Amino acid sequence: MERIAVLCGGVGAARFLSGLVDVVDPAGVTAIVNVADDDEFHGLHVSPDIDTVLYTLGGLVHEEQGWGRRDETFNAQSELARLGEDAWFRLGDRDLAMHIHRTRLLREGRSLTEVVDGVRRALGIGATILPATDSPQRTRVRTDAGWIGFQEYFVQRRAADLVRELRFEPGATPTGAVRAAIAGADIIVIAPSNPFVSIGPILALTGLRDQLQEARAAVVAVSPIVGGAAIKGPAAAMLAAFGYDVSALGVARLYAELADAFILDTEDADLAPAIAALGLRTSVVPTIMRDRATRADLARATVAAAR
Amino acid sequence: MERIAVLCGGVGAARFLSGLVDVVDPAGVTAIVNVADDDEFHGLHVSPDIDTVLYTLGGLVHEEQGWGRRDETFNAQSELARLGEDAWFRLGDRDLAMHIHRTRLLREGRSLTEVVDGVRRALGIGATILPATDSPQRTRVRTDAGWIGFQEYFVQRRAADLVRELRFEPGATPTGAVRAAIAGADIIVIAPSNPFVSIGPILALTGLRDQLQEARAAVVAVSPIVGGAAIKGPAAAMLAAFGYDVSALGVARLYAELADAFILDTEDADLAPAIAALGLRTSVVPTIMRDRATRADLARATVAAAR
Repeated sequence: MERIAVLCGGVGAARFLSGLVDVVDPAGVTAIVNVADDDEFHGLHVSPDIDTVLYTLGGLVHEEQGWGRRDETFNAQSELARLGEDAWFRLGDRDLAMHIHRTRLLREGRSLTEVVDGVRRALGIGATILPATDSPQRTRVRTDAGWIGFQEYFVQRRAADLVRELRFEPGATPTGAVRAAIAGADIIVIAPSNPFVSIGPILALTGLRDQLQEARAAVVAVSPIVGGAAIKGPAAAMLAAFGYDVSALGVARLYAELADAFILDTEDADLAPAIAALGLRTSVVPTIMRDRATRADLARATVAAAR
Repeated sequence: MERIAVLCGGVGAARFLSGLVDVVDPAGVTAIVNVADDDEFHGLHVSPDIDTVLYTLGGLVHEEQGWGRRDETFNAQSELARLGEDAWFRLGDRDLAMHIHRTRLLREGRSLTEVVDGVRRALGIGATILPATDSPQRTRVRTDAGWIGFQEYFVQRRAADLVRELRFEPGATPTGAVRAAIAGADIIVIAPSNPFVSIGPILALTGLRDQLQEARAAVVAVSPIVGGAAIKGPAAAMLAAFGYDVSALGVARLYAELADAFILDTEDADLAPAIAALGLRTSVVPTIMRDRATRADLARATVAAAR
């Protein structure tokens, strides 16, 4: 059984994983998921990327939206607003159950790793899902309005601000399970997620970048940028803000020191030579994960690129 | 403005209060509500009697049921069960918002009294609603299965056990606001609630029984028993278990030392002489609160009996 560790953000990573577990033994797959987007709402601990992965692999996700629950209702949310609670971060009724459950267990002293593993089992998910860290690592975003929390930037202000700087709480460490998954992996994938706010916080964990560079596994990165635009979210705007090409090439430059291979979309085939010149093996394949078949194809191409 | 303090349990008290605020200035009404039924579910603090009063006076209650929210959904509950949480205490999605809000504020250090007052304002309720105590006072019930929590007895086991003994956490004290409401009241009403598990815990608060006996206000009790049966809940079974007549007379004996007047149903008119012989003024009126008009009539009769 091939052991594949995948560094993950939210929607793009979750869709990638759903293809991967279709083409390899899920028991060999370990998702290492960003938790720097985590925040507390109404006293409940919310882990957006973790939940997107759980809901997607558990078959519960709102497919078109890419995150949250399908058949969702928002009755608790309306009542929270009536009671004067901030209502800009909308939590569905089904989704709330997850936050209530997680918060209870965390308050009782369980680690986020333990909580997520229990939920994974309850949802019948075969892949291992690991929070990148059990330490708080909350992303702060410097905009022209000052330093704000990630969810304030991303949800409340709809990612409309120019991002001047990003900061993660320093000193967060990867869990032992994460270190073991990286050390034991045959293949390491950097999922098609935002390089700055999804993959960035994972790479910022103490010692993790060194561990990746020393890993025996091949590291394959999948571009989240196609045709100069992000499939989802503010990755393109952030590439521009931080002075990178808004393209698969810009992403490849970010990962050049870490990765051995790079997957880019057929639409960006003309960038392959420049990416190869960075020292990366390139694979040019369709990367837009419209449906189950395209996700499986992308996963197959990614695994093949690592071998 | 007449100041009326009402000792309250859940449904019966809430319906009584809804009639009372229709016939007197709500600003003069203070509900002193049992919190010994409070419990924690999924890490959330649930206050069943408080919420029944809030929902009823706020116009949000499920009228036929008498408690909980109308137009309620149970999507979070289904998901909590999927995640392995105990599901016997069913919490609706709208109702959950209240528990989430309350739990957040309690964790941030607010008292239950402060939390309830904020909710009361948010729901546009004119009457004052006071938890009888801010101390934990959880009712324990001794059944043939041993000591169990009140909600285990009442909800999980559907009040089917013979109750051998009741115990409230000792040392709970009435809040300053409760003491002031009793001291300042022109009329004190014991609502038609369960004498043992709704009114009993309030009377068990340190010093409260003495304060009632010394109060300048007339104390009027409204029978929760009509024709030998409780309108709702296990009051009749408890009267029997503790050796009292299962009748308005049995209730009157429980309150004889505290009350000046006693309201009983027209169906029980034949018991009036025996109740009067206990030293209580009696009023015989319809006490079944079918609709707004009968609630208002009962409230008027109660206030009149106190004067």
